[in-house]
Amino acid sequence: MSNFYLDNDDLRFYVEHVLPWAELEGAVGGAGEKGRAEEWRDLLEAIGDFVGNEAAPQVAAIDREGVALSDGEVRYPPRLSRLVAQMSELGLHKLSLPEELGGLGAPFVVYFLACEIFSRADPALMTHFAFHGGIAAALLSFSIQEGTTRFDPATGKILATRFGEAIEEVSEGRAWGSMDITEPDCGSDMAAMRTRATLGADGVWRLSGQKVFITVGHGKYHIVIARSGRDPSLPATRKGELGDLDQLGLFLVPAWEDLPDGTRKRHIKLLRAEDKLGHHASPTMVVELDDAPGHLIGKAGEGFQYMLQMMNSARVGVSCEAVGILEATSRLAHAYAAERRSMGKTIDQHEMIAEHLDEMRVDTLGLRALAMRCAVHTELAQRLDLRERIARSGGVISFSEGRALRRHRAVARELTPLLKYLSAEQAVLHARRALQIHGGVGYTTDYGIEKIYRDAPVVPIYEGTSQIQALMAMKDQLGAAMKAPQDFMRKEAEARWRSLSARDPLERATMRLRTLGLSAIRHLLLKTATNKLKTLRGQPLSSWSGIVTGGWDPKRDFSWALLHAERLTRLLADHAIAETLLDQSQRFPAWSDRREVLEAHLERAEPRGRFLLDEITNSGGRLLGRLARRTADAAASPSDRRGA
Amino acid sequence: MSNFYLDNDDLRFYVEHVLPWAELEGAVGGAGEKGRAEEWRDLLEAIGDFVGNEAAPQVAAIDREGVALSDGEVRYPPRLSRLVAQMSELGLHKLSLPEELGGLGAPFVVYFLACEIFSRADPALMTHFAFHGGIAAALLSFSIQEGTTRFDPATGKILATRFGEAIEEVSEGRAWGSMDITEPDCGSDMAAMRTRATLGADGVWRLSGQKVFITVGHGKYHIVIARSGRDPSLPATRKGELGDLDQLGLFLVPAWEDLPDGTRKRHIKLLRAEDKLGHHASPTMVVELDDAPGHLIGKAGEGFQYMLQMMNSARVGVSCEAVGILEATSRLAHAYAAERRSMGKTIDQHEMIAEHLDEMRVDTLGLRALAMRCAVHTELAQRLDLRERIARSGGVISFSEGRALRRHRAVARELTPLLKYLSAEQAVLHARRALQIHGGVGYTTDYGIEKIYRDAPVVPIYEGTSQIQALMAMKDQLGAAMKAPQDFMRKEAEARWRSLSARDPLERATMRLRTLGLSAIRHLLLKTATNKLKTLRGQPLSSWSGIVTGGWDPKRDFSWALLHAERLTRLLADHAIAETLLDQSQRFPAWSDRREVLEAHLERAEPRGRFLLDEITNSGGRLLGRLARRTADAAASPSDRRGA
Repeated sequence: MSNFYLDNDDLRFYVEHVLPWAELEGAVGGAGEKGRAEEWRDLLEAIGDFVGNEAAPQVAAIDREGVALSDGEVRYPPRLSRLVAQMSELGLHKLSLPEELGGLGAPFVVYFLACEIFSRADPALMTHFAFHGGIAAALLSFSIQEGTTRFDPATGKILATRFGEAIEEVSEGRAWGSMDITEPDCGSDMAAMRTRATLGADGVWRLSGQKVFITVGHGKYHIVIARSGRDPSLPATRKGELGDLDQLGLFLVPAWEDLPDGTRKRHIKLLRAEDKLGHHASPTMVVELDDAPGHLIGKAGEGFQYMLQMMNSARVGVSCEAVGILEATSRLAHAYAAERRSMGKTIDQHEMIAEHLDEMRVDTLGLRALAMRCAVHTELAQRLDLRERIARSGGVISFSEGRALRRHRAVARELTPLLKYLSAEQAVLHARRALQIHGGVGYTTDYGIEKIYRDAPVVPIYEGTSQIQALMAMKDQLGAAMKAPQDFMRKEAEARWRSLSARDPLERATMRLRTLGLSAIRHLLLKTATNKLKTLRGQPLSSWSGIVTGGWDPKRDFSWALLHAERLTRLLADHAIAETLLDQSQRFPAWSDRREVLEAHLERAEPRGRFLLDEITNSGGRLLGRLARRTADAAASPSDRRGA
Repeated sequence: MSNFYLDNDDLRFYVEHVLPWAELEGAVGGAGEKGRAEEWRDLLEAIGDFVGNEAAPQVAAIDREGVALSDGEVRYPPRLSRLVAQMSELGLHKLSLPEELGGLGAPFVVYFLACEIFSRADPALMTHFAFHGGIAAALLSFSIQEGTTRFDPATGKILATRFGEAIEEVSEGRAWGSMDITEPDCGSDMAAMRTRATLGADGVWRLSGQKVFITVGHGKYHIVIARSGRDPSLPATRKGELGDLDQLGLFLVPAWEDLPDGTRKRHIKLLRAEDKLGHHASPTMVVELDDAPGHLIGKAGEGFQYMLQMMNSARVGVSCEAVGILEATSRLAHAYAAERRSMGKTIDQHEMIAEHLDEMRVDTLGLRALAMRCAVHTELAQRLDLRERIARSGGVISFSEGRALRRHRAVARELTPLLKYLSAEQAVLHARRALQIHGGVGYTTDYGIEKIYRDAPVVPIYEGTSQIQALMAMKDQLGAAMKAPQDFMRKEAEARWRSLSARDPLERATMRLRTLGLSAIRHLLLKTATNKLKTLRGQPLSSWSGIVTGGWDPKRDFSWALLHAERLTRLLADHAIAETLLDQSQRFPAWSDRREVLEAHLERAEPRGRFLLDEITNSGGRLLGRLARRTADAAASPSDRRGA
């Protein structure tokens, strides 16, 4: 029994010292209202108490009992129902909603911290927290964006919002929502989407199709993406850029309506609850929309952009989930290894085990640092974006705020895929290592590590697989360097210079790591350009200019960079962690553990960085040659495409 | 539905071309009897048919049903009972027993191949094959070693053997056995063993104690290691070398006896069947020996040596199990990725996925090559050892056979921990990657990969954890270099020379990899020696010689090498695979895939080797310093030892 907030010095360090509470609160409008930080501390203490002392002792039993679909409805084991009810009583489902909508008005950062605390006990239980309040917050944000929320221009307070009813139900714990994106055979590839929304003569959109892998998809409010066509009032998008993605719309679809006669009419049917490896406390649903009436968010054709924005926040949330898993894993492994004796000492003193434990601890601390940094920029970008929108309807946004908005957005965009990638990958890796440290007993269900080993591997799959994160990170980084080569060269020169001239050896090492990352980007750019130039062979000279300046095929031309995208992402994420820890160690010199963690991180990250650059530079030709031959063969005999 | 032998070209390549059948059969005594290779081929075809067509379609259901302990006995689901009965009918439980004992007389290599084939369908089902015939073979081998098997000196055929009755029961499928080694809080650390064997006045040994994690431990014949004291006729061992391990004895303990009145008296009670992450078709038992009468094997005090020998064979078997898991994993992932389309092509043509698939395939082929090589040397060493023992009782063993025996033993000893380490680690790694490739559907129980992900991680735990394998490999390699530094330097010079002079670029690369491995050993030796010299500081000059030449503390002096043991093992295993594939490519030039696999393996192994050497050379000081400080603190306040 322990309080999962109070027993965690590192979490408390962020809450008590690092997080810019005044800025976070100022950004919401109530600038200058200091002192609320203490409220959030108290709130987190209450959450830590609930999760650590109430929930954690029950999660193993709930995992065994699981949730089930019977007679078309999902049933919880009684323990789970009680916990969810307690969460509502604590007000957790209205945590981040503005006070004028009956919420607690906590910054999103508090929500992300709570995600980590919940996930440490059980990532499946976390969904009953995250998808309730999180969906209400998303609905509010959508309404603000599409311009259907009215503000008092003087105070910036919300007067009315389009989805107010749903938000109220969710915040009071009477309903919750889900994100319905994935379809059978259509995960990351949104262009293959088949669910269709049609606008009836009655002005009502109706949706039909099947959605799969819907986390807590047995709730009332479904945010559904569907093929809707494109509103003619929207400016045309460059074809090829988004493919068919500009034909999608986002909808709020209630799963049922309660008729006046007291009966309930279902618009979204629950077809199946998946039987899964883990996350047994969280129903993963296959649902069917059958002419279900939905409310279009924004305009038809804007769905993909709205969805991306919701997903970006969700990715930070999933990363905090991963950090929670890492925290639980590291604690379990350390505790077991400190008790278990072998060859005359506890096994945490055996060198190999000690190193696995150390890496687990250092990764947990480093990834939390990155997650907190990413959460702050994500929140400040959203809050300033909100201010900008309010400003449009009469308020003021200053030039410096505008610049801050762009900076926060850029940093959040750069860090999110790095964070999601590495936190998810390390959660899986360390879960396995912790199981290994437990030996035979780890393989039985008597110890918690077996459950973590089952729970972890969904994290690098949902909200965009690790490979999708790597793809996004690679594209952004190479794209930025291509757009502004002078900036890129300036960055390189600066990193080289600081890697030699900085006084602090840890700063020099951090800069060496940055240099490795930039060298990797430079190499992939050169490879990409060289490949492109090769395609000029045999083409008439007059067409060269056109081929080089336009007509890039992202699928073929970037094949080198695609092959090495995971390596590049790892290298950049390692540097982002080092940079974050270096900044903390400079801002908080009294916290000596910051330098200790940074040093331990760099000790592994530097040789690994050299290795990754070595691989990026020296391998891949064989495999890409084979893929190119296959593509050529397939083009020659298209009928064989699937059987190859 | 498919035949798991016939559909596997790589397996057939070994059986039809690589395995030295004449030598394997010659070694058993019936030298010159050619032509039986065809029998083994037919046998493997029958096994492939049974496993692929009968067993494989049922394993998912058996995994769900599981085995259970009720009323003190283990119950199988009916499907599993039928499969085990079919295995007996096929004669699989007497596969490797000599014909004069009613067996099929197949080389052990056939047994290992069958292990892989079974494991591809289900590693848990494999135990119902491996622990039946395997235990009978172990009993025969023990009896030969202790000199209680009589041979016809003319033919080398067995006339009678001590455990004949048990062997007959097992080979006919009426009983099976288990290896009872692990105890609560005593896995790898045999010195902590508490089960005790006492010799009664009636001349009967009786054993009492608890054994845990006993695979298929509900069988009749338990091979149990227990504290027995040491037979005074044995020469004294150097204390400190083995610790208390020279006080152990190995016993054959029947779990029950059938009394004349038709009732059964249990000597070994079944306390619990573990509830496990995977391997649900294989009972993992906690058993209690309560004054159970046992038959001492060899002499009291020789138990550890007998056990090690049995374990070495078992480690090759577990490695083949790992290769079977890899084969299944790779096939599932390739098949899924070839079907599943995303962004306009099947995902096996997406660069990142293609690389994961390629590494899976190359690791599977490379590790099978190493496993087959290790299996052959293990078997030939055992067979020649047998001939030597027969020779002692009248036959002849030639000088060249004696030399071959020593060579096979040395190679098997060197390769086994490398093979067990890497095959088990890669089985776990690729199971996770294959799950990742499946995306969301991989996380459900509808696809086989979720089961593999659960089944794999016990492989690097049982029969000696990965860390124990790394420890053994490191000790052997460093020990050999210390004992014969001139040999070591000659090897280094030769590897350098060949890495420059060999005509074949793949041979040069293989030798570069070898050079990296040898450099790592050299570095760890120098580090070890330097540390040792540091301890001279402050000691009187007169004691230096004594400190350096004797009195090494393996726990302290080798700390650098211990810290990097896993890295060293990985590097050496990578080289062993390359060496094996290079040899195959030279012996079978017509098989072009050998060079292709070798090239693909080297493409990854070389940068990884540079990385591992980089880490071995440049990291670890921080962590070892911390461990040393902890040890010093613990010594200063011994009462805090456990709480630290």
